[in-house]
Amino acid sequence: MGNVIVAQSGGPTTAINASLVGVVKGALASDKYDKIYGALHGISGVMKEDFILMNDKDLDLIYRTPASYLGSCRYKMPERGESKDVYEKVFEVLSKMDVSAFFYIGGNDSMDTIAKLSDYSREIGSSIRFAGVPKTIDNDLIKTDHTPGYGSAAKFIATSMLEMAHDTAVYEAPAVTIVEIMGRDAGWLTAAAALARNEYTSVPQLIYLPEVTFDKAQFIEDVKKLLETTNNIVVAVSEGIRDAEGAYISATSAANDKFGHAQLSGAGKCLELLVKQELGIKCRSVELNIPQRCAAHIASATDLKESMELGEKAVEYTLAGETGFMPVINRVADKPYSYNISLGDLDVIANQAKSVPREWINDKGNDIKQELIDYMLPLIQGEVEVAYKDGLPVYAALGHLTGKK
Amino acid sequence: MGNVIVAQSGGPTTAINASLVGVVKGALASDKYDKIYGALHGISGVMKEDFILMNDKDLDLIYRTPASYLGSCRYKMPERGESKDVYEKVFEVLSKMDVSAFFYIGGNDSMDTIAKLSDYSREIGSSIRFAGVPKTIDNDLIKTDHTPGYGSAAKFIATSMLEMAHDTAVYEAPAVTIVEIMGRDAGWLTAAAALARNEYTSVPQLIYLPEVTFDKAQFIEDVKKLLETTNNIVVAVSEGIRDAEGAYISATSAANDKFGHAQLSGAGKCLELLVKQELGIKCRSVELNIPQRCAAHIASATDLKESMELGEKAVEYTLAGETGFMPVINRVADKPYSYNISLGDLDVIANQAKSVPREWINDKGNDIKQELIDYMLPLIQGEVEVAYKDGLPVYAALGHLTGKK
Repeated sequence: MGNVIVAQSGGPTTAINASLVGVVKGALASDKYDKIYGALHGISGVMKEDFILMNDKDLDLIYRTPASYLGSCRYKMPERGESKDVYEKVFEVLSKMDVSAFFYIGGNDSMDTIAKLSDYSREIGSSIRFAGVPKTIDNDLIKTDHTPGYGSAAKFIATSMLEMAHDTAVYEAPAVTIVEIMGRDAGWLTAAAALARNEYTSVPQLIYLPEVTFDKAQFIEDVKKLLETTNNIVVAVSEGIRDAEGAYISATSAANDKFGHAQLSGAGKCLELLVKQELGIKCRSVELNIPQRCAAHIASATDLKESMELGEKAVEYTLAGETGFMPVINRVADKPYSYNISLGDLDVIANQAKSVPREWINDKGNDIKQELIDYMLPLIQGEVEVAYKDGLPVYAALGHLTGKK
Repeated sequence: MGNVIVAQSGGPTTAINASLVGVVKGALASDKYDKIYGALHGISGVMKEDFILMNDKDLDLIYRTPASYLGSCRYKMPERGESKDVYEKVFEVLSKMDVSAFFYIGGNDSMDTIAKLSDYSREIGSSIRFAGVPKTIDNDLIKTDHTPGYGSAAKFIATSMLEMAHDTAVYEAPAVTIVEIMGRDAGWLTAAAALARNEYTSVPQLIYLPEVTFDKAQFIEDVKKLLETTNNIVVAVSEGIRDAEGAYISATSAANDKFGHAQLSGAGKCLELLVKQELGIKCRSVELNIPQRCAAHIASATDLKESMELGEKAVEYTLAGETGFMPVINRVADKPYSYNISLGDLDVIANQAKSVPREWINDKGNDIKQELIDYMLPLIQGEVEVAYKDGLPVYAALGHLTGKK
């Protein structure tokens, strides 16, 4: 018998609260765990002893509520050699709170935190179990087929792209629309734009991922060629595309600018300007921006379900005596989609990143292949039932906000 | 007995096809009208004799499909004195096609077109009826309580703002998020961001509309003051805010830039830079952009229903002998919401614009008043049932795209 701490860290997503609900449900279901403390703002909240008690209240609502219910932090755990006092502080709190399992829901940095705490725990002979639960819209964690949060972001991106395919098609004059999508180092999210294609639209006709070196001259050639057969071109581009020197396309352009406009020009804006300059035709750029990771009204049911299962499974594994792990998703088949969940070793997973395989991108580097479509498609399936009140979706008030405005 | 032409013009919206369906249903229901020709790409399609036949096929699907099913154009009808040949061409086609009523669904410019055609018709003694059917997400047509398309755009904006209120709240460090919303001259869309406020969030805390002169120094003061009580500030700002000289806030900043970056900096980006420079805190800007006018997966049921009714009513009025009009919505009450539809005089409506009344904006010009909330709230009510296939909304292939890619 002992208590449980659960916390969330890193960038918020649409699915991170489904994982929280999974951990809470799993712990409530077990007679081995007593109180469930939600630490506010990640590991920082643990050190500050800033907790709320979690119970079975509002779990269905929290399940489909966007952004971290417990708040988040960007705290990077120091190496043990550097700041032993941080570790001592954390374990002092865990001991004081009679904690026997600690669950950390987050991305790369969070898995690093949990790996370090778990290693330290072994070192000092503590019996506290440490589990990471993955989330990141970027889908860039290794050893898991995909990450919670990705499917919902992909569904929003594909839906928005389909709707923009309608919108951009209405005029007869030639026009180019650049859609900038999140993903500094991995193109998983940008690739999801391809899911919008159907029997009446081939939008987006061009897709550029950070996995392939971006060549401005080739891009203009790609657009020119398309203009021979269509007047409506839509381009999906990762925010992280880079040139042959490894410089972000955004940074390259801003380097010429002495007025500090570096912050002004993302990849999308840069390409917009380039098209206008080189081709003299109408061009606009769209950044999907924050809504990519919080548009819970169009979350993927598959994504939320899996996210919750991973939370539940993490609890199960700790009950079986495991520590220093992250539950991972293993895909068994694309069609019909099936998967299972197994133990992943945190020391291997933390601080590594998974790119889109080059063989899932076409040779020219301006589109993706069917293999990637087959990979993504199951992850956006299913709609989550959303309640509406006064015309807007009903979500849970974030736990860390309660009492604040 | 005679035929009907229906066409769409101006910027696409989520509701413009519901009005199309209204016209088609109205015409199908009457034994006075025979064939229904959909002119592709507005009045240009009429002159090019580019038509598709409309019937009762797929009307339910077209009803909830975003962007102009018949395509659009930005053609501005010349004055009669200037180019009589244009008028002669249009009437030659109408006569050849045995048209007895012409319906033009669009915004300001489209109402101008229909007013001119109607005047010319009277002048030459033609019996063809001309009707405008309003649409514009901007909500800036006069003489009608609101315009079709506005409610759905407002619902998307308020929903996105609510979801961003969750997303932006998760960190403890102070941060400002600027959300730039469509509306060059009128603040109706930006005001809709206020609908996101509820019992747990006061986001957006600041709202700036183009109806009030924007003062950068005052804006920084407003943000500073808020920072005393909260660490998460979200600002809703119209793309069209202007300074005391009447210059767009975007243009003001770009004037310093010799690299052609005028196109780089909208109002949102400008304020983002300003906050970073003046306050040295984290700031990001988000442009809601095209999705505002095409996010049909979260359309307002009230909006689509009214849009269709206006189309049906337009047909009814032509059958009663009316011409040179636009059906308008008259609000009877906010709570419970009720309205009726009546005849509006196009000569009065065309080429005028409706701003947000100054008395619906607070004295400081950084927020809106309850009267405006009460006005907007009924317009975003109700959800449209969307069918999903393979994880994405199912829409009708746009009529003007059929056979093209």
